[in-house]
Amino acid sequence: MRIGDTWYRTIWPSENGLAVEIIDQTLLPHVLEIRQLRSIEDAAEAIRMMRVRGAPLIGATAAYGLALALREDDSIGVLEASCEVLTATRPTAVNLRWALDVMAREVVPRPEGERANAAWACAARICDDDVEISKRIGEHGLVELQKIAENKGGACVNILTHCNAGWLATVDWGTALAPIYMAHDSGLKVHVWVDETRPRNQGAALTAWELSSHGVPHDVIVDNAGGHLMQHGLVDLVITGTDRTTRRGDVCNKIGTYLKALAAHDNGVPFYVCLPSPTIDWSLADGVREIPIEERDGSEVSHLTGATPNGEVITVRVTPEGAAVANYAFDVTPRGLVTGLITERGVVAADAEAMAAAFPDHAKR
Amino acid sequence: MRIGDTWYRTIWPSENGLAVEIIDQTLLPHVLEIRQLRSIEDAAEAIRMMRVRGAPLIGATAAYGLALALREDDSIGVLEASCEVLTATRPTAVNLRWALDVMAREVVPRPEGERANAAWACAARICDDDVEISKRIGEHGLVELQKIAENKGGACVNILTHCNAGWLATVDWGTALAPIYMAHDSGLKVHVWVDETRPRNQGAALTAWELSSHGVPHDVIVDNAGGHLMQHGLVDLVITGTDRTTRRGDVCNKIGTYLKALAAHDNGVPFYVCLPSPTIDWSLADGVREIPIEERDGSEVSHLTGATPNGEVITVRVTPEGAAVANYAFDVTPRGLVTGLITERGVVAADAEAMAAAFPDHAKR
Repeated sequence: MRIGDTWYRTIWPSENGLAVEIIDQTLLPHVLEIRQLRSIEDAAEAIRMMRVRGAPLIGATAAYGLALALREDDSIGVLEASCEVLTATRPTAVNLRWALDVMAREVVPRPEGERANAAWACAARICDDDVEISKRIGEHGLVELQKIAENKGGACVNILTHCNAGWLATVDWGTALAPIYMAHDSGLKVHVWVDETRPRNQGAALTAWELSSHGVPHDVIVDNAGGHLMQHGLVDLVITGTDRTTRRGDVCNKIGTYLKALAAHDNGVPFYVCLPSPTIDWSLADGVREIPIEERDGSEVSHLTGATPNGEVITVRVTPEGAAVANYAFDVTPRGLVTGLITERGVVAADAEAMAAAFPDHAKR
Repeated sequence: MRIGDTWYRTIWPSENGLAVEIIDQTLLPHVLEIRQLRSIEDAAEAIRMMRVRGAPLIGATAAYGLALALREDDSIGVLEASCEVLTATRPTAVNLRWALDVMAREVVPRPEGERANAAWACAARICDDDVEISKRIGEHGLVELQKIAENKGGACVNILTHCNAGWLATVDWGTALAPIYMAHDSGLKVHVWVDETRPRNQGAALTAWELSSHGVPHDVIVDNAGGHLMQHGLVDLVITGTDRTTRRGDVCNKIGTYLKALAAHDNGVPFYVCLPSPTIDWSLADGVREIPIEERDGSEVSHLTGATPNGEVITVRVTPEGAAVANYAFDVTPRGLVTGLITERGVVAADAEAMAAAFPDHAKR
């Protein structure tokens, strides 16, 4: 999407073809810095440190990370070791494993010497496919927004979103934000309530930055506010992304998503999840019991980064010195709270049969 | 309660009797600063800027604010104007209005010249009564904690709390934290999940500071985390305070309380509200429709204050420059989500009849 006059993706091969480049998302919204990843170590570090984040973008970065490793040595041993290193960077996002599986299927059958180029091409294809998926999700989501706008007689549609499932979370367009961009571009009146999304503030830092870059009306709110807004009719629908969704439709997403789903359910507000099919984990059914939830460093809770009045970006501690802190990164929204899954193949019920019917090719794997 | 070796209240008359002193809570947990309030303007500013906060402490501060005004001029005109100024400082907390009513009933019938001393004595009594109420709430809440501990065979009781309803929110002891202090002191094993409570971080800043000063085991978590913890059996009960509760038991409290109540309900976790009777608004029934919700300055959401590594306390912006922000300070938890109201007269159902039966003297007013 556009930053000023330039159209960016979140990841792209460098001009000399020897590296990939990313936007370092840990510095947004204060600094826009492009960073080169020249090795698998760079790629793993970028995922681990969340310089790139969002399930689809993690998958794309892992794919390029593997391609970078195979440039050095394209033996099967290196491929296997590389997949292990990359898989360990973030335990929850299923796209990471999915992207590495796609890469391995493409690369392994080829003779040594041909694998590196095949890997590079496959990573590029994963990126292009992701953009295509995001666009289709946007188109299907747009239909839902149009219906709501029609029911409101053309009045502004208020959408609440949690975390960042915008173009920064994917290669381009985004998942949850794709329908919103398309609605805005088509002249539909939309307004977004942006959950700041503690502890890493991806809503306040990334979603607000994206929306304001694109000119979509929005207000940043604390994660605590959504229930109150829904009680007072100020939210027409909730749209979020997902980091992993089970085959029956339990949705693992950024911590706090479940609380918004409960509030939506309690107030009769539709709760949609934008779900690219590579984010479906067909091996799991019960999300609450089966999905491992990443625990991250407590400093993400105790410390916060922001800009001083003179533009310096610094980190401050908000808790008492030495305070004990716990930091769970995701939660699971049981499928019963999900109105619909907006996939690249249309809106699918959060239900094992409906999902298998929509993705018979994947479900059988 | 103790800070180091000294027992503090949150508000007390200065030694020379001409002012009252408070702990400036906007500087905690980084700096402990005592501040003198010498006039009604000082008192109103302290409430408005949240140097003092928490429904009971707001009431006590307003009472002293009125007493300070009457020292200058004890005419009925000044009394009425002062009540108006103080009432306007925070629209949601009902204790403020309650305390001023108590003061007016005490002061108005007296002749000029006697009103200032009567007001001073009445404010002191309001403070002492508040301490008594908090202690009783603590004792009744302790019984609930003991029952849960017994059911767990003496294993640690995990309590989740939102915002700060500790001694800093009252004159002493606190409401939601009073049972926890008493449980800890009596040797019961307790552990507190402390919601950081954005936007003003009263949980991370004040509750964590209080609990660590008193040695109660706890972990600070983001406001998003409670649902996940409850899904995984890591919360035995939720206890919060309240800023205003209607006569049928709808609970207005810090924004986000409603979301935790929904999660508690969804997971069969008891949800208790500690309710001093002056916080009951007998004039209201339907909290969602009838309680005005304060909207505060957006800078509370866009900016955050913390300590740098060298101990400097500074404010940083976390949103993109110029981002639009909305800041609702409270929400309402409908009574159906409340397991019980822990009052100074025992645990009362969140139900109009039960509340009227427990407080027949107030209910008739």
